Amino acid sequence: MLVTALLRKKRDGGTLQRDEIEFLIDGYCRGDVTEYQMSAFAMAVAIRGMDPGETATLTRAMLASGKLLQRPDGGELKTERPRVDKHSTGGLGDKVSLILAPLLAVCDLDVPMISGRGLGSTGGTLDKLESIAGFQTHFEADQLDRILADCGVFIAGATQHIAPADQKLYALRDVTATVESVPLITASILSKKLAANLDALVMDVKVGDAGFMKTPERALELAKSLVSVGGQAGLPTTAWLTDMDQPLGEAVGNAIEVNESVEILRGAGGPVRDLTIELCADLLVRTNVADDMESARAMLAQRIDSGLAMERFERMVAAQGGKLTQPLPLAASHPILAPRQGYLSHFDCAAIGDSVVCLGGGRRKVGDRIDHQVGIRVHGRVGDFFEKSQPVMTLHCSVTQADEYIKVLADSFDLSSERVESRPLVLERLGIPSLE
Amino acid sequence: MLVTALLRKKRDGGTLQRDEIEFLIDGYCRGDVTEYQMSAFAMAVAIRGMDPGETATLTRAMLASGKLLQRPDGGELKTERPRVDKHSTGGLGDKVSLILAPLLAVCDLDVPMISGRGLGSTGGTLDKLESIAGFQTHFEADQLDRILADCGVFIAGATQHIAPADQKLYALRDVTATVESVPLITASILSKKLAANLDALVMDVKVGDAGFMKTPERALELAKSLVSVGGQAGLPTTAWLTDMDQPLGEAVGNAIEVNESVEILRGAGGPVRDLTIELCADLLVRTNVADDMESARAMLAQRIDSGLAMERFERMVAAQGGKLTQPLPLAASHPILAPRQGYLSHFDCAAIGDSVVCLGGGRRKVGDRIDHQVGIRVHGRVGDFFEKSQPVMTLHCSVTQADEYIKVLADSFDLSSERVESRPLVLERLGIPSLE
Repeated sequence: MLVTALLRKKRDGGTLQRDEIEFLIDGYCRGDVTEYQMSAFAMAVAIRGMDPGETATLTRAMLASGKLLQRPDGGELKTERPRVDKHSTGGLGDKVSLILAPLLAVCDLDVPMISGRGLGSTGGTLDKLESIAGFQTHFEADQLDRILADCGVFIAGATQHIAPADQKLYALRDVTATVESVPLITASILSKKLAANLDALVMDVKVGDAGFMKTPERALELAKSLVSVGGQAGLPTTAWLTDMDQPLGEAVGNAIEVNESVEILRGAGGPVRDLTIELCADLLVRTNVADDMESARAMLAQRIDSGLAMERFERMVAAQGGKLTQPLPLAASHPILAPRQGYLSHFDCAAIGDSVVCLGGGRRKVGDRIDHQVGIRVHGRVGDFFEKSQPVMTLHCSVTQADEYIKVLADSFDLSSERVESRPLVLERLGIPSLE
Repeated sequence: MLVTALLRKKRDGGTLQRDEIEFLIDGYCRGDVTEYQMSAFAMAVAIRGMDPGETATLTRAMLASGKLLQRPDGGELKTERPRVDKHSTGGLGDKVSLILAPLLAVCDLDVPMISGRGLGSTGGTLDKLESIAGFQTHFEADQLDRILADCGVFIAGATQHIAPADQKLYALRDVTATVESVPLITASILSKKLAANLDALVMDVKVGDAGFMKTPERALELAKSLVSVGGQAGLPTTAWLTDMDQPLGEAVGNAIEVNESVEILRGAGGPVRDLTIELCADLLVRTNVADDMESARAMLAQRIDSGLAMERFERMVAAQGGKLTQPLPLAASHPILAPRQGYLSHFDCAAIGDSVVCLGGGRRKVGDRIDHQVGIRVHGRVGDFFEKSQPVMTLHCSVTQADEYIKVLADSFDLSSERVESRPLVLERLGIPSLE
């Protein structure tokens, strides 16, 4: 089989066969297929697409490049706690994982959460957790097994054995403008989740300016692909389309998002708690831990309000080497005031996200160091009313940088004199047979 | 400017601006744009295409990556002999360059012919000439200047200063299935020809099974692109679409094609002489050496029949270090006989070309050594009548390999009991204002 013949086939819009895709991915891992051939392949796929069968084959080939996380019973009988995970396509202020993972662990589910770092304006869960002094994210497989057995949950980086083909290809896609491709995104996400040997997965596909998929159409396309390919590969997957036209919750940054997560684990209300409970309820029902969404929601609320979920979060942080102080220290605060009274009508999410990145709270390129103490707290959501001179945001950064970014942020929201409707948080759910 | 932003633009079918294309090509030469980014770019161009303006900019950027061949007067005044060249897209048995170059040189034109090596079934002019003992193809720019001043002609390989961006990109395209792209072919050919500082170029675009462009539509697309971009870049270019559904002339191989070329330089008739005279006449008229095609043809025929062109060929061979023996030795000959009487109706050009390659007369990959003595002589053209047992071809190869390839070649042509029309050699001419 000739690599160029396969590239030519995809270039001309053809459909690749199972053995052809396996030949490419296996060869790429061995080094027989070069980086420049793989980037040409990724570009051809980004333009020509892949059908669901090709995408499923690509996913399985990337999974097969590594190892599965073991299950205590050997992996097949699944007599121990069901193993679940959630994955978000990323958005501004999305700290759901920090709350969801320990919350599910106190509902008799195991949550082996393999997470990533942020690049660009959407922060990474691992970066946020590293705001906690001593928190470790790199473990070997046997260490992860031990933490999972002790806590029912870990949040860590991928080992080199988790879908290495995806790790290699992802780095290449990032520098060749081939990230935004539904089949490549699908295979990347699902190969890693399949490697975690899960019983159920819920995908949170963000839609809007601050998300990866800007339009409902593109988000729906990705959601359908994830549900279909997940199902074909034996991982029951649901997908929720949720709003990302404004920050999720109040905090945007690293330490500041851990602080908000702790507040929610201690009982604070709001959209982050609401969404977390919804996503968790989906998993509880699908793994038969709860009979229906209503009883699932009640169980989840009880686990938060009783302090069990917070306790489990602290146990996981300790197991991963962290020493949690509350609240985590932040950089100096600078209020951004409403220039006049009005209803919050729009956020410029790119401006908010870029400000955090430029202040050092995110990465512009792989390897950049993170300043965990910078961040922004947004004091309202679209539809909320502000009096003139009431703080709309609080910026945390050094005094020397404050003036510049106070100006940027003052322009990052609109106030309307007319009443503005609040935006629904959940837009659509896919792959859910009957939850209510 | 971000490389990924430019890749994204072309991926999504956008039009790149001049500064964007220059940024990519300059960066590629400096090493700031990586091989894998360039291969993703090449794939995006192969699928999305480029408009004539983008193609012209790409051509100029690749030209600017190197140096121009100097002109004796400094390059701008052009008071010395007009400088011309011909380029063929490659075909089976195409040895026109070997005859055309010295023939033009004895018609008061300079022919600094930068040529290439063969890869796959179409032979390379340099490989053919290296059948001559001692013939050198690698020279520095000042040596090439000297040979051109002495002989009015050279046929040599590109120095590292001739459009180095093209040399780098061409090697990459070959292994990433991005060769067959009209804008990339156009830029590759014309950047090298522009570097030779020419006054006129004639392109021989081959159409048919044994050529690079299999259909008249694709060939016409390429021809139009070459004429348009050549014109925009200040190099008057014409393009001839010529038949490549059968070998051009009789010989296919290396030494055997040199032998046929020498026969034609010594006065032999046939389609190779006819096509060579037509292409040369185009250049003579466009450089005002002849008033019209008719007088140009007469001048060219006289230059061949007087022996002047052959003399000039010998002078060039000697200047490039070669010792021409006539005829060059060939491997043992094996006739391929007509199995019955009939009219030659079709050649399987791929089978003929592949046989020569497999016998060692061509390369399967860069760096393969060439056996110059193997080859095939085809004793007729489509439409010719053969008696039963009359030789249709003569195969030159070692006795041990003969049986296998006699069988392959016996299946490489069809004989029809019905009379068959001969095929026209020239299908179409583009960019020629008025030659007759």
